[in-house]
Amino acid sequence: MDKPSERLKALGLTLPPVPKPVAAYVPVVRDGNHLLLSGQIPMKDGRMMFTGQAGLDRTLDEASEAARLCALNAIAVAADAAGNIDNIDRVLKVVVYVASHEGFINQHKVANGASELLKEVFGEAGRHARAAVGVAYLPLDATVEVDVTFRAKP
Amino acid sequence: MDKPSERLKALGLTLPPVPKPVAAYVPVVRDGNHLLLSGQIPMKDGRMMFTGQAGLDRTLDEASEAARLCALNAIAVAADAAGNIDNIDRVLKVVVYVASHEGFINQHKVANGASELLKEVFGEAGRHARAAVGVAYLPLDATVEVDVTFRAKP
Amino acid sequence: MDKPSERLKALGLTLPPVPKPVAAYVPVVRDGNHLLLSGQIPMKDGRMMFTGQAGLDRTLDEASEAARLCALNAIAVAADAAGNIDNIDRVLKVVVYVASHEGFINQHKVANGASELLKEVFGEAGRHARAAVGVAYLPLDATVEVDVTFRAKP
Repeated sequence: MDKPSERLKALGLTLPPVPKPVAAYVPVVRDGNHLLLSGQIPMKDGRMMFTGQAGLDRTLDEASEAARLCALNAIAVAADAAGNIDNIDRVLKVVVYVASHEGFINQHKVANGASELLKEVFGEAGRHARAAVGVAYLPLDATVEVDVTFRAKP
Repeated sequence: MDKPSERLKALGLTLPPVPKPVAAYVPVVRDGNHLLLSGQIPMKDGRMMFTGQAGLDRTLDEASEAARLCALNAIAVAADAAGNIDNIDRVLKVVVYVASHEGFINQHKVANGASELLKEVFGEAGRHARAAVGVAYLPLDATVEVDVTFRAKP
Repeated sequence: MDKPSERLKALGLTLPPVPKPVAAYVPVVRDGNHLLLSGQIPMKDGRMMFTGQAGLDRTLDEASEAARLCALNAIAVAADAAGNIDNIDRVLKVVVYVASHEGFINQHKVANGASELLKEVFGEAGRHARAAVGVAYLPLDATVEVDVTFRAKP
């Protein structure tokens, strides 16, 4: 039960397909063993699932669920780049941007949605350094964007 | 036509002079072969060219042009640190911060101004991982700030 | 007078205790010689010292002092991870997020509070690449959040 692939299955999760690059940027750059990802937004099956600002259009629970979905998308991109989810060595750093209405100051609780999924899937190797900030708006009106750096096994 | 210096010339672009550090921080830190840059704002010849928020003071096209200018400044800083633009191995990661008025959700299109220049100048080596977010305000009222990490040749 | 520990003492500063991880994320991840830190907020003795937005609830001087406190907390985390402050090789990159009220465009001056402390403590090794941006809100209503990457001696 220690392999991420087994944990993922035990959580009842499957990794979504990785979006094809549509522009001058790419979902992930491999730099040595580092996997530098593009920011992930809460898309599922090609649809944006969570739009609007936390504290206005979205509750804390919804925003946190959005962050969890972003993290699942990030895991999918990293697994694809590493060849396999079990080739991921660890999660290094996570930056969580939360579209935040006036007075919303629970970005850290929103970010826990991403952090907890990473811990559930990767165990101790899923614990990461993190920054969580409240921005004005995000691309396509996404409620959350999650930027993750992973390390792959050599 | 594969060298960045030749592409730059073909685009009719010249690299601006690199600003001297004026404070406790510097335009770039070289860490092994990584070039960690300070965030670049749309300055040209010592003047801020694009101020104000996208969606209010600036159109999408203007904000995208601002992002392109930020990216040109970043290339100049990286080329200076690497000794020469052709010593740059590739672009790794780009974070684009867009000062965004209420309801502006096209940060990804603004960011394309930076991404496309990097692709035009570096070709395949210019494709990068990217995050684009909409912030409230930026230093000196800049419309865009672009934070780039490059890798130099050994 | 060149060792960071001596500079710190000369500045009359002591490093605060490092907070214990309370969630799925950790204060710092060591990746090779890189120390990737979580974003630091202006806490002191377990209390948040600076809340509210710069330009509304906080003056430039207060926000700058908040940034300085965040940087002190970051140094404490890095020193703990490196075993000792004198095992820190240099500061690489700093991102300063400033909770900013409408029209506040002095994020770079706020960020100087962090940058100057790093320079005072580490001398030339304290000079870093930097991005400073103005966000909407930060966790627990913090006025500033500072995200620092250090390099430790091998």
